[in-house]
Amino acid sequence: MLIVGELINCTRKKVASAVEARDRKFIQDLARRQDEAGADYLDVNGGVLGQETEALQWIIEAVQEVSQKPLCVDSSISEVILAALPKVAKRPLINSLSAEPRRLEALLPAALEHRAKVIALCLDENGIPKTADGKLRIAEHLLRRFTDAGLALDDIYVDPCLFPVASDQQSGREVLRAIELIMTEFRGVHTILGLSNVSFGLPLRRALNRTFLALAMARGLDAAILDPLDRAAMATLVTARTLLGNDASCMKYVTAYRAGRLQAEAGG
Amino acid sequence: MLIVGELINCTRKKVASAVEARDRKFIQDLARRQDEAGADYLDVNGGVLGQETEALQWIIEAVQEVSQKPLCVDSSISEVILAALPKVAKRPLINSLSAEPRRLEALLPAALEHRAKVIALCLDENGIPKTADGKLRIAEHLLRRFTDAGLALDDIYVDPCLFPVASDQQSGREVLRAIELIMTEFRGVHTILGLSNVSFGLPLRRALNRTFLALAMARGLDAAILDPLDRAAMATLVTARTLLGNDASCMKYVTAYRAGRLQAEAGG
Repeated sequence: MLIVGELINCTRKKVASAVEARDRKFIQDLARRQDEAGADYLDVNGGVLGQETEALQWIIEAVQEVSQKPLCVDSSISEVILAALPKVAKRPLINSLSAEPRRLEALLPAALEHRAKVIALCLDENGIPKTADGKLRIAEHLLRRFTDAGLALDDIYVDPCLFPVASDQQSGREVLRAIELIMTEFRGVHTILGLSNVSFGLPLRRALNRTFLALAMARGLDAAILDPLDRAAMATLVTARTLLGNDASCMKYVTAYRAGRLQAEAGG
Repeated sequence: MLIVGELINCTRKKVASAVEARDRKFIQDLARRQDEAGADYLDVNGGVLGQETEALQWIIEAVQEVSQKPLCVDSSISEVILAALPKVAKRPLINSLSAEPRRLEALLPAALEHRAKVIALCLDENGIPKTADGKLRIAEHLLRRFTDAGLALDDIYVDPCLFPVASDQQSGREVLRAIELIMTEFRGVHTILGLSNVSFGLPLRRALNRTFLALAMARGLDAAILDPLDRAAMATLVTARTLLGNDASCMKYVTAYRAGRLQAEAGG
């Protein structure tokens, strides 16, 4: 499982305040803690009203001073991503491309130029399809475009896009089926989810998020955008991996247990 | 989900001691608490060396004084089950039949006579197959035998038999595939699992058990033998059901939350 640490995101109020105040220590602390908790990539999102380009560049500089982890460059504005990519020291992951023509045309050449990996949202000019089949059709279109342009399947993370189950009760089930279809039909590609959407509008969101993580891993999900400081979520990841037969001699499980990384879970 | 409360089982030392001492209050308390926690059936197992028939009959009498829930009559000795069935007030669930010829010939006529529901283990004279396909073959054989004899599919709970992942790392994955195959090929039948086997030999067993419960529910599992007093397991059941689209308007989730039944989970 590839883990993208989600915490350095200006849609979170405390992060936005820290970035506006250019509080280097706050951001660097978030970077360091996610790095130590096992994040493989650190997401960086500078979505502060009106000055996102500068904010993101400042974040990237601050984070790269304290962490060697590669960055997941995240913005809803293509130009912000384009301006950020030259600042990124290691091979970046772009969050995200989609099948919206303007987004695609702006970001695909940049991804190639910077040898970036990409997150590919199952989203086009008509929005996000609700059904697994609809999501698969967009994934198919994107993968053809990306591989024709020279990207390797191994550098593409398809995100089937999770709606809150509170607003669409079949959302989880359709996404699980989409993951299985994508991982079966396009061997070598990856799938990724931002988990927290699934629980929007319901209480005890973290329990919903981590349970959905296990369900998605069972369908082949091999990357997730999550809070690596959420010990219960990280424990669920380790536990599910072992139950799914991806832990020879259960060594990863036992090692995590001995390091005290599983004990956040209640009830033993 | 149908829940079989597993606690009144003489393989547990405290229960064996209570049964040997004919401690009616202890057993009735276990019955009452599982009943109130939401068990649909109460498993009763009197496996005490040498006097299991008498022990089980005493348990059944004690439990039926305090709970209206039907019983899951559980023994590895067919004669113990045969002697117990006439004592059971409500339509029982027999735990368990298998494809071992002697077991089958002893218990199938009794199941029909007592209009019992049955747990059908994927086990024959060669043991328990490791692969999903092997489990499916035994399930197929048993279901043909049972339905030819007059049992309805709706009265049969197939248990694909879970090995500890500590001894066979693919055990979980094969059982998940078996559940999906059985539920797809024999529409109308049920599947059931004793969850605690999966975690044998590993630390933090309850976390493994409840995570596997969620994974199995995603494949169609609709019954489980578990500890209904394990609040985290029961919360996982509610959470997984909602994520899997089996909770219209998320009402069951919200109701469980308001009743304080989800808060056992750590981390909110």
